[in-house]
Amino acid sequence: MASKRAPAILTARPKFHPCQLATAPRTISTYGYEQAKALTFAEHGEPSKVLKLHGHSISPAHGSLITLRFLASPINPADINQIQGVYPSKPVFTTSLSTSSPIAVGGNEGVAEVIGVGSGVKTVAKGDWVIMKGPSFGTWRTHAQTDESSVFPIADKSGLTPIQAGTVSINPTTAYRMLKYPSSSLQPGEWFIQNGANSGVGRSAIQFGKLWGLKSINVVRDRDSGIEELKKELQELGADVVVTDTELAAPKFKEKVMSWTDEGREPIRLGLNCVGGKTATNLAKYLSPNADMVTYGAMSKQPFALPAAALIFKNINFGGFWVSKWGKENPDARKKTIEEILGLMKEGKFKDTPVDEVKWDHETKGDTLIDAVQGTLEGYRKGKSVFVFGDP
Amino acid sequence: MASKRAPAILTARPKFHPCQLATAPRTISTYGYEQAKALTFAEHGEPSKVLKLHGHSISPAHGSLITLRFLASPINPADINQIQGVYPSKPVFTTSLSTSSPIAVGGNEGVAEVIGVGSGVKTVAKGDWVIMKGPSFGTWRTHAQTDESSVFPIADKSGLTPIQAGTVSINPTTAYRMLKYPSSSLQPGEWFIQNGANSGVGRSAIQFGKLWGLKSINVVRDRDSGIEELKKELQELGADVVVTDTELAAPKFKEKVMSWTDEGREPIRLGLNCVGGKTATNLAKYLSPNADMVTYGAMSKQPFALPAAALIFKNINFGGFWVSKWGKENPDARKKTIEEILGLMKEGKFKDTPVDEVKWDHETKGDTLIDAVQGTLEGYRKGKSVFVFGDP
Repeated sequence: MASKRAPAILTARPKFHPCQLATAPRTISTYGYEQAKALTFAEHGEPSKVLKLHGHSISPAHGSLITLRFLASPINPADINQIQGVYPSKPVFTTSLSTSSPIAVGGNEGVAEVIGVGSGVKTVAKGDWVIMKGPSFGTWRTHAQTDESSVFPIADKSGLTPIQAGTVSINPTTAYRMLKYPSSSLQPGEWFIQNGANSGVGRSAIQFGKLWGLKSINVVRDRDSGIEELKKELQELGADVVVTDTELAAPKFKEKVMSWTDEGREPIRLGLNCVGGKTATNLAKYLSPNADMVTYGAMSKQPFALPAAALIFKNINFGGFWVSKWGKENPDARKKTIEEILGLMKEGKFKDTPVDEVKWDHETKGDTLIDAVQGTLEGYRKGKSVFVFGDP
Repeated sequence: MASKRAPAILTARPKFHPCQLATAPRTISTYGYEQAKALTFAEHGEPSKVLKLHGHSISPAHGSLITLRFLASPINPADINQIQGVYPSKPVFTTSLSTSSPIAVGGNEGVAEVIGVGSGVKTVAKGDWVIMKGPSFGTWRTHAQTDESSVFPIADKSGLTPIQAGTVSINPTTAYRMLKYPSSSLQPGEWFIQNGANSGVGRSAIQFGKLWGLKSINVVRDRDSGIEELKKELQELGADVVVTDTELAAPKFKEKVMSWTDEGREPIRLGLNCVGGKTATNLAKYLSPNADMVTYGAMSKQPFALPAAALIFKNINFGGFWVSKWGKENPDARKKTIEEILGLMKEGKFKDTPVDEVKWDHETKGDTLIDAVQGTLEGYRKGKSVFVFGDP
């Protein structure tokens, strides 16, 4: 984050929005400032209570600084937990956005275009699309200025949409790494089983699994209608089997598993759990000896019961995965994973997870944006919401 | 196990019990047969219902067979689960003990003296003390005949008691291996925390920990009286801290842990759990990030709840340890571990866990022996019960 204090907010919009000419030499606004807006918070609490749309200006980049125009930034559940103050990865509160008291910008994931570079910048160029190297960047904003070292450029953005690039680094990356969970080393023909299978991570896992020759049992929540459509949708992504929580809990499920897995000769070597509670305990029952169960979420907000026999006699190993921590400890592997997934997207081998686009342009009211955040929290939206920036 | 059918039971005792002259050339009984007794069962069920004291004779060893006289065989909880039919390691039912229907001999652990060897035997000699290479041998018997390949000799038994040698291969070996849990690699000055700390495994872990420079927080059950004596006893073994379940559950326990661990600078890298239920969940709270929690028992018969945050954000890994499986997969390491522990016992560096000795000689009634087994199941006894064979 730039530590340099930005100048006072300019209320007038620049004559030309600088991004209108992103591929040609940029027209600089009257005083060379970008007019930026950001969803910020000064204290932890419910998003609807603490979020504010804050305007400020960004001076021309110098030294190793770069100026960014955001293209797409998703609203992930963890972003909301971070605002609530219940997420271990803390936001960065700063006065660098021209406020007298420190504020933080919401959002951890996104893709931005480089629209200005300081004279000392070496790793990115104007027009590049960049992804944040770490969490807590504050991606819910139209523009940002930062040191070049806090982002990396996408080597070749052609054929990619902003939504693809802006949502690659958390959900698909989580799925990719969990399927490569070190002690599992799943081999083609082997199975994994997951709950929350229609989530962003779940859909990604189905697709990577298919690409890598793995088979999957996919558990989704019971619902009043549309279950057959959802099953079909996930099967088209590559799911071998899709079942509901109720089907998973049925006494006869064991027999079905045996029939799918060639009477157990094809092991279920990995379980992925983002739900917890009873359904996680049920899922663990179908793991083969020496399997791993990896937890990456707790959508039910319930802990799950671990029977000792699974640990002792079946030697099931229960671990967790947190993509932020993994990415921090393995920055090179993270970059490589993201690039590989973007490559699959470009080749059409990886289908996007359906999202709700929330347009954000210079005229968008704060309430509209804040409602989108609060709505994600309250489960109003079906897909993940993504801010898609409209200027230009 | 010898597959050869033993001859019909001789009811007369041999004139001299062959073991009376174990160090001199043995006097062979009238027909060269040993008179053996074994606690056996023909079907699964409660020990008091299904166990029978069965007499049979053992012919002189030939080929690679050896004849054993048992010295000490403990009654472990798993032995009882095996009789009940609820243990994954199954007993071996056979008609080789002169019965028309198959029966199995109870007991998985023990030490025996070699009292006879076939002409082809190469790895053991008369007078050696031997330990079983695998589980389900059937150690609750006065004598056995088996192939030399199913046992290994203790290199130097001098200075060892039968109870030490007869109880080394499950509890102390479990403790030893768990403290060496591969991903933990505890370093001197680091901590582990365990429940069931006054069990055989718990006491062993305290002692190994002390020998290796580790520090330990030890949790024991609440009890009406004698808690201070128990705390003192475990501290004398090397426990740094001993607390009850109630103390562990207290809100202020966190502060105490911080004070013991130099404000958390000394990590608690390993948790050992043989209880399950609420106390296991409580114990997990005090583990440092990236720690392992290893479950090896479930004395409360309750599963324990796993909070997702421990898995995801603290990256606590929950695994299990089963010494039978480990020993089967790592026979050389098992032998080496047992020998190392026996060495520590001989040097006086490893104090015996208190046991209840149950004498078993030729005149002991079946009911006495069966009561000892059933009593272990029902928790009547304070220490572990060990059959100590009285002839000669």
